[in-house]
Amino acid sequence: MDVATLSRGMDTIWVVLTAAMILLMEGGFALLEAGFVRQKNAVSIIMKVFVDITFGALIFYFFGFAIMYGKDAGGLIGTSGFLMGGDLSHINLNISHDTYWLFQCAFVIAVISIVSGAVAERIHFRAYILYTILMTGLIYPLAGHWVWGVGGWLGKLGMIDFAGSAVIHSLGGFSALAAAIFIGPRIGKFTPDGKINIVPPSNLPLASVGAFILWFGWFGFNSGSTLSATNGSIGHIAVTTMLAAAAGGATCILFTMFRYKKADPPMVINGSLAGLVGITAGCAFVSDGAAILIGVICGIAMVLATEFLESKQVDDPVGAFAVHGISGSIGTLAVGLFAQPELTKGVGQEYYGLFYGGGWNLLGVQALGLVVIATWGFLLTFGAFWLIKKIAPVRVSKDEELIGLDVGIHGVPAYNQEHDFLDVERIKAGK
Amino acid sequence: MDVATLSRGMDTIWVVLTAAMILLMEGGFALLEAGFVRQKNAVSIIMKVFVDITFGALIFYFFGFAIMYGKDAGGLIGTSGFLMGGDLSHINLNISHDTYWLFQCAFVIAVISIVSGAVAERIHFRAYILYTILMTGLIYPLAGHWVWGVGGWLGKLGMIDFAGSAVIHSLGGFSALAAAIFIGPRIGKFTPDGKINIVPPSNLPLASVGAFILWFGWFGFNSGSTLSATNGSIGHIAVTTMLAAAAGGATCILFTMFRYKKADPPMVINGSLAGLVGITAGCAFVSDGAAILIGVICGIAMVLATEFLESKQVDDPVGAFAVHGISGSIGTLAVGLFAQPELTKGVGQEYYGLFYGGGWNLLGVQALGLVVIATWGFLLTFGAFWLIKKIAPVRVSKDEELIGLDVGIHGVPAYNQEHDFLDVERIKAGK
Amino acid sequence: MDVATLSRGMDTIWVVLTAAMILLMEGGFALLEAGFVRQKNAVSIIMKVFVDITFGALIFYFFGFAIMYGKDAGGLIGTSGFLMGGDLSHINLNISHDTYWLFQCAFVIAVISIVSGAVAERIHFRAYILYTILMTGLIYPLAGHWVWGVGGWLGKLGMIDFAGSAVIHSLGGFSALAAAIFIGPRIGKFTPDGKINIVPPSNLPLASVGAFILWFGWFGFNSGSTLSATNGSIGHIAVTTMLAAAAGGATCILFTMFRYKKADPPMVINGSLAGLVGITAGCAFVSDGAAILIGVICGIAMVLATEFLESKQVDDPVGAFAVHGISGSIGTLAVGLFAQPELTKGVGQEYYGLFYGGGWNLLGVQALGLVVIATWGFLLTFGAFWLIKKIAPVRVSKDEELIGLDVGIHGVPAYNQEHDFLDVERIKAGK
Repeated sequence: MDVATLSRGMDTIWVVLTAAMILLMEGGFALLEAGFVRQKNAVSIIMKVFVDITFGALIFYFFGFAIMYGKDAGGLIGTSGFLMGGDLSHINLNISHDTYWLFQCAFVIAVISIVSGAVAERIHFRAYILYTILMTGLIYPLAGHWVWGVGGWLGKLGMIDFAGSAVIHSLGGFSALAAAIFIGPRIGKFTPDGKINIVPPSNLPLASVGAFILWFGWFGFNSGSTLSATNGSIGHIAVTTMLAAAAGGATCILFTMFRYKKADPPMVINGSLAGLVGITAGCAFVSDGAAILIGVICGIAMVLATEFLESKQVDDPVGAFAVHGISGSIGTLAVGLFAQPELTKGVGQEYYGLFYGGGWNLLGVQALGLVVIATWGFLLTFGAFWLIKKIAPVRVSKDEELIGLDVGIHGVPAYNQEHDFLDVERIKAGK
Repeated sequence: MDVATLSRGMDTIWVVLTAAMILLMEGGFALLEAGFVRQKNAVSIIMKVFVDITFGALIFYFFGFAIMYGKDAGGLIGTSGFLMGGDLSHINLNISHDTYWLFQCAFVIAVISIVSGAVAERIHFRAYILYTILMTGLIYPLAGHWVWGVGGWLGKLGMIDFAGSAVIHSLGGFSALAAAIFIGPRIGKFTPDGKINIVPPSNLPLASVGAFILWFGWFGFNSGSTLSATNGSIGHIAVTTMLAAAAGGATCILFTMFRYKKADPPMVINGSLAGLVGITAGCAFVSDGAAILIGVICGIAMVLATEFLESKQVDDPVGAFAVHGISGSIGTLAVGLFAQPELTKGVGQEYYGLFYGGGWNLLGVQALGLVVIATWGFLLTFGAFWLIKKIAPVRVSKDEELIGLDVGIHGVPAYNQEHDFLDVERIKAGK
Repeated sequence: MDVATLSRGMDTIWVVLTAAMILLMEGGFALLEAGFVRQKNAVSIIMKVFVDITFGALIFYFFGFAIMYGKDAGGLIGTSGFLMGGDLSHINLNISHDTYWLFQCAFVIAVISIVSGAVAERIHFRAYILYTILMTGLIYPLAGHWVWGVGGWLGKLGMIDFAGSAVIHSLGGFSALAAAIFIGPRIGKFTPDGKINIVPPSNLPLASVGAFILWFGWFGFNSGSTLSATNGSIGHIAVTTMLAAAAGGATCILFTMFRYKKADPPMVINGSLAGLVGITAGCAFVSDGAAILIGVICGIAMVLATEFLESKQVDDPVGAFAVHGISGSIGTLAVGLFAQPELTKGVGQEYYGLFYGGGWNLLGVQALGLVVIATWGFLLTFGAFWLIKKIAPVRVSKDEELIGLDVGIHGVPAYNQEHDFLDVERIKAGK
C-alpha cells in the first residue's frame, strides 16, 4: 500500500459518502414539500421529487454533465463527456471521473428540486417531466459551466462560488420565481378583493424533519465540495455551515416572535435553510463571525421576501424563491464582502473581499455573475414553460386542482385513514 | 503513524460508516412498510422491524455469523466464530473481525426485513419472532455460506454476487413469497367472486421517504461491500447503483403512465427499489450502460410481477417478492450476461459475461446458484412456518385482523388524532 | 502527499462525518418527541428542538465551549476559547480546533434535547429559550469540564466516560427529572382520585423512525468520540453499541410481553434507546458480553423506572428520565464493573473494573462522579427554572394547554387534513 493509493482511496470515500448525503436531501425535500403543501397534494409533490432524482440523474448522465464539465468551447459550453465518454482529461482530480459525476449529479438533482416546490399543487405532471429534462440537461449545465467548468467565462473572470449559492440556489430560486409567475397562484390563494389566504401546511412534523435531513445533507454539500479529504478547509467549512444555519434559525425564532408575536414554525424551518443557502458560496472563504452574520441577514431577508412575494400576489407554496433565490444571492455577494485571503488559498488564489482590503473588484465580479445567473434562470425557465405549453398543458384542470393532484392525477390519496379498500370514485365524491 | 495503520484505519471507518448506513435502512423499511399497509397495522409492522434489528443482531452474533463465515466444513457450513470466538483466521481482511461482523450483521437484518413486508397485517407477533430466529440463525447463514463463506460450494463453482442480489434479495424475496402463500391473503383482499380489492397505502409520504432512506443506505450496501476504502471500484459501484435506481424509477414512471394512464406512486417507489435490487449483484462488474438496462428491465418486471401475483391471488402487501425476488433474480443472472473482465479484477479474477465473450459458463453458474438459493429460501421458509404452526398460531384471529394488529395485538393505535387519553376499549368498539 | 497530511485529513473527515450524524439525531429527537406527544403539541415540541440546535450551537460557540474546554482554572472551569479565540494550545489533537468544536457542539445539542421531552406539552416557549441558554452555556459546560476538560477534577480522579453516559445522559436525564417535577404534570394525566391516565402517542410510526435515526446517529456519537480514524477501538465500539441497543430492545419486547401480555411499542422504542444510552460510557472499555448485559439491564430498568415515576405522579411525557437518567447512571457504573485493561489502553491507561481485578477503586470514582453530575444537573436545572419563573411564565396557561401549544402558542396546527385555508379561530373553537 502506497501513500498515493491511500490518498486516492480516501478522497474517493469522502466524495462517495458526501454525495450520498446530498442525495438523501431528496428525502428531505420530499418531506419538506409534502409537509408544507395541502394533504391532497402531498403525493403529487413527492412524485416530482422522484422525477428529479430519476430523470435528473439520467439526463445529466446522457448530456448534462458533458455540457457543464466537458471540454470548453469559447467559455460558454462543454463539449465532451456525453455518457461519460470522450476526452475529459482537462478534469484533473484525485478521484475518478465517475466519482466526480456522482457528486455533480447530486447537485443537479438539488437544483431541480428547488423549483418543484414553487409549482406545487397545480403543475401538470407531464409538463414537470419536460421541464426537468430542460433544466437538468441544458439550463443548469450551461450556467454551471460558466462558473465551475474548466474555462467557463465567469470562472475566468474570478467569480467564486464554493458550493453553489449562485450556481445552485440563485439559479434554482430565480427559476422557481419564473415558474411560479408563469403558472399563476393556486385557486383561492388570493381572493378578488385582495385578501391573502394562508394555506396551512398539512404536516409540519414531516416538514421539520425534512429540514433536519437537509441540514445533515448540507454538511456533505459544502464540506464535500472540497472533493479532497486532505483539503485543510473541511473543518472550517463544516463549522461555518453549522453557524450560519443556527443563526438563520435563531434569527427567525426571535424575529417572528417580535413581528408576529409567535415563533412561526414554517418561518423557523425556512430560516434555518436560508442560513444554509447563504453560507454555501462562502463557507470556505469567510470567518465564523461572517458566517453568523450571513445567517442572520438571510433569516430576516427570507421572512421579508416571503411577505413581499405574497403582497405581489406571487404564490410560491414552499417559499422556494425566498429561501433559495434571496439567500443564494446574499451569499454570493457576501463572498465579495467577507472573503479572506488566508481562507481562499484552498482554491489556489488569495481573494480579498471588500472588508478585507480587496476593494470593489471581487464584489463586482460576484454581482455580475449573480445577475447573469439569476437572469438566465428566470428567462430560460419562463421560456421553457412557454415552449412546454405549446405541446402539453402546464397546469392541471380546475377540477383536478380542487380535488387535489393526488387523486386527480395519480389516482391515490396520500393518506388513507379509514377505509380498508380503495375506491377512488368515493374519494372524488368527497366521502 | 505508518501507512499500514492509516490503511487499516481508513478501511475501518469506511466499513463502520457504511454499516451504519445499511442499519439506517431499517428506518427506511419501517417507513416504507408502515406507509404501505393500512393505518390499523402501521405499528405492528414497525414492531416487526424492531424484531429484525434486535433479535436479528443477537442471533447473528450468537450463531448466525459462525454458520455463515466460520471455518468451512464440506463447502456447506461454517463451524467456528460462535459469539465471535474460536478460529476465524481464514477471514483475512484489513479490518478487525468484529468490524466485519457489524457489516454482515447489517446484511442479515435487511434479509429478514424483506420478509416482514409479505406477511404484514396478519402474522402473529410471536410466530414472527420465531421465524426471525430461524431465518437469521440458520436459513440465511447457510445459503450465505455457500456463496460468500470461505470454501462455500457455490463460491467455489465461480458464482459471483457482489453485494447480494441473490444472497440477500432473491433469498429474502422467495422466502417472502413462501411466507405470503403459507399465511394466505388478508381478509377481503380477494373476494369469492374473483374481484381483487386494492388496499390503499395509509401514508404514501412516509413510504416515499422510506424509499429515499433505503436508496441512501444502498450506497453503503454496495460500495461498502468492497470492505476496503482503497478498492478502485468504489466510485464505479456508486455510479452504477445510482443509474440503476434512476432507471428503475424513471421506467416505472413512464411505464405506469402508459399502462395505467397515471404515474402510479407505489409502483414508482418500488420501481426505484427494484433497480437498486437488480444492480446489487453486478454493481462492481457491469458497465454504466448495463446498469441502466438492468434498472429498466427490473422496473418493468416488478410491475408485471406485481400484477401476476395478484392475478394468482397471492397477497404480498408491500410487493416484497416483486421487488426483491424478481429483481434479485434478474440481477444475479445479469452478471452472467454483462460482467466485464476488466471490472471483475477487483475480486481477484477476470470473469466474462455472455455478451463479453465468456460463453454460457458464468451465466450457467449464476443460474444454478440462483435456483439453489431461491428454492432453499422458499422451501425452508415454508417449512419453518409449518414447524412454527405446531407450537404457536401463525396468523392472528379474524377479530384481531379486522380491528387491526396495532390495537388487537399491541394495544395501541399507530395514530391518535383526537383523544387526550387512551381508551383501548373505545377504540375496539370503533369509536 | 505525506503521511501526516493524510492522517490529519482522515481524522478530520471522520470527525466531520460523525458530527453530522450526531446532528442528524436532532431529526430523530424531533420525530421521537412529536410522535410521543399529542397531536396538538407536535409542532411545539419540534420548535423546541429548533431552539436546541440553533440557540444551543450559538451559545456553545460564544461561551459554552470556552467554559468546558478552555484553559483550566482549579479543575473547575475553562477560561479560554470564547468565540473560539484565545489560547487553546492545551487541546492537543490531530484535528483542528474548529473541527473539535463542531463535534462537541453536536453533543451539547443532544443534552438539551433530552430535557425538551420532559417538559413537553406544557412549558412556555420563552422559558424554554432561557433554559436552553443556561444549560448549553453553563450547566452542561461546567459539569463537562470536570470530566472531559483538560485538568477537570473528576477526570483527574480517574473517572472515565467514553462518550457520555454520565456527562451527556445522566446530566440530561436528571435535569429532565428536575424540570418535570418543577413544572408539574400535564392537566388530566393524574386524576384527583389517583387514577393514572395514559396519554396516547399521536404518531408511533414517526416515533419509531426517530429511534432508528437516533440509533444511526449513535454510531457517530460513540465511534466518533475516538476523534481519530486510526484509533484501534472503532470497530469494537460500533459492535458494543449495536449489541447493547439490540439487547435493550429485545429485552423490552420479551419483558413487556411477559409483564403486560403484549409487546408494548413505546417501551420497545425506549428500550433500544436505553441500551444505547447505557453503553455510551463503556463502549470502548467493556466486552461484547458485558455490552449485551448492560443492554438487558437498561431495558428492564427503563420499564420499571417509567412505572415508578408514574406511580409517584411525576409526568415525563417521553420517558426522558427513565431512558437517559437511569440508563446513563447504569452505564456509568457499569464501567466500574466491566472495564477491561486491554480495552482501556486507547485512553492511555489500563483501567480495571471490579470484575477484572480492579477492586472498588474505579467503581468508587465512577459512583462519585455520577452522584456529582446527577445532583448538579438536578439542582441547577431546578434553580434555573426557579430563576426563570421570576422573569417569565414557565408554564402555559390552562387554556393554551387544553387547546394545545401548537395553536395556542405557535398559531398553527401540526397536521391539517381537511381545510384548504387556515382559520385559527375556527380551530380554537374546536371545529
